[in-house]
Amino acid sequence: MTDHATIYEVGPRDGLQMAKATMPTATKLRWIDAMAAAGVAHMEVGSFVSPRHVPQMADTADVVGHTVAIAGLETIALVPNETGARLAYAAGCRSLVIPVSVSETHSRSNINKGTYEQVAEVARLVAWLRAQDEPVLVETACATAFGCSFEGAVPERRVVEVATALLQAGADRVSLADTVGYAAPNAIRSLVRATRAAAGGAFQKLHLHDTMGLGLANVLAGLDVDVRHFDASLAGLGGCPFAPGASGNIVTEDLVFLLESMGLRTGIDLEALVATRAFLREGLAGEPLHGSVGRAGIPRTFRAAA
Amino acid sequence: MTDHATIYEVGPRDGLQMAKATMPTATKLRWIDAMAAAGVAHMEVGSFVSPRHVPQMADTADVVGHTVAIAGLETIALVPNETGARLAYAAGCRSLVIPVSVSETHSRSNINKGTYEQVAEVARLVAWLRAQDEPVLVETACATAFGCSFEGAVPERRVVEVATALLQAGADRVSLADTVGYAAPNAIRSLVRATRAAAGGAFQKLHLHDTMGLGLANVLAGLDVDVRHFDASLAGLGGCPFAPGASGNIVTEDLVFLLESMGLRTGIDLEALVATRAFLREGLAGEPLHGSVGRAGIPRTFRAAA
Repeated sequence: MTDHATIYEVGPRDGLQMAKATMPTATKLRWIDAMAAAGVAHMEVGSFVSPRHVPQMADTADVVGHTVAIAGLETIALVPNETGARLAYAAGCRSLVIPVSVSETHSRSNINKGTYEQVAEVARLVAWLRAQDEPVLVETACATAFGCSFEGAVPERRVVEVATALLQAGADRVSLADTVGYAAPNAIRSLVRATRAAAGGAFQKLHLHDTMGLGLANVLAGLDVDVRHFDASLAGLGGCPFAPGASGNIVTEDLVFLLESMGLRTGIDLEALVATRAFLREGLAGEPLHGSVGRAGIPRTFRAAA
Repeated sequence: MTDHATIYEVGPRDGLQMAKATMPTATKLRWIDAMAAAGVAHMEVGSFVSPRHVPQMADTADVVGHTVAIAGLETIALVPNETGARLAYAAGCRSLVIPVSVSETHSRSNINKGTYEQVAEVARLVAWLRAQDEPVLVETACATAFGCSFEGAVPERRVVEVATALLQAGADRVSLADTVGYAAPNAIRSLVRATRAAAGGAFQKLHLHDTMGLGLANVLAGLDVDVRHFDASLAGLGGCPFAPGASGNIVTEDLVFLLESMGLRTGIDLEALVATRAFLREGLAGEPLHGSVGRAGIPRTFRAAA
């Protein structure tokens, strides 16, 4: 058991990608700078996807150009395929996430390819990346690992099979994502154990949603089985909420509050992080901001982990 | 480890007491009936407090008269003192909760009496109750057990001392309440262990708030140390939220979702319980309703514990 935990801020990618408004690039860069200054050391800053389909991400190459120069920040980009990986590499990004839906139906609905077609795409893009001069860290995210809104329950065995295939395809890491927010704590513990048994240290990270209100309870379940790496989004932005007013991604500032309150160092200054919510109010007018720390304030008893 | 958990619905007391509007008695009774029909078996139905100070609770004797006739429902009333206990007994209530603030400052601010003055009040009211014909179950709730908005951190030793004094004063049970929502999972585990070491089986129940978003994570921490009894409030009504939009009590329907998803039987039909939110919209116009299950709906993968 280590005494620290690692948070991956996905707001600039997952959050802004889902937002109704498009945040101006200048605001985005100031927001990212402020989060990095607050101690965020790992950040998904954008997606190399078609700007026709996702105009919010059209500036990703510029954003990457800016963020790779920030000392102490790991710049991560999402790429859906080899084309995206080539663009990301050209932009200077050396840490990629490729989503792969474990649910066949979800995969086809989302990217018009089956799960194992996407695994083959991972193999191709890894082969291309490995032929370049500089090393690139490739994480594959097993989406719908805890259930799917089309298929319902997703068998644990299927998740482990896909995770294993992704590592065989050359990915450095596999993570588990509760894409539709169906996970409960015992499912977290069980699937983490099963995935780790197959993937070993290549499995590190959980991407959890708060759709059913269980986001932080599921984090705690993850901690119980020694997970120390978590995605989260400032103000809970993004994460595909499927109902009006519902939340998607777990809220970074609430996650920091939980972890630090439990004595796990995150390296993040909670007060400074909460202050960066101002950039969302400025750059995303009308977007609902979630999060208990943001609403209720930091309690006077809060002490960051020593 | 048992395979069930016990939920105490506190909405008709804690929720309505804090609400801006006063729910008409007829609506209140239909709401209570509907929750009981959904399987809620333990309910705080009102407070025997001054109707001048808390007009929402003026009908408590009538409500108790109604609910004691509901088969399978434990009718519980809050009483602040011996006067309230006499009224509750006269009304036919045989299960009482008396709040006792562990924080001296919170106690004086709330009831104008110090913690140990309230312990002495418990001794008096228990003495009176024990002299009556019918037995009455007396639970004392250690308020501010996990921190206080006035005093900040509350020492564990102080909580255990007060809990011990309450049992010596004749209470049947002591519960622990996170009145201001400061608790984090490790504090839950630690204080539960310390309290149980002193109180044994007289400690059973946690009363948790979701102010900082940790409500259900704290439930999970309680489950980890074998707590199986929890207070909760439909739609998260009440619970003293100290910021606009912030939530107070943990949300009963979200708690049922968590527990049943983990294989713990609650005896409550989740869909029927969620449907009773209609009475809050009807009887408490404008009151904010919390809860993820209510917003997002019950996921298709949900199965009640078998």
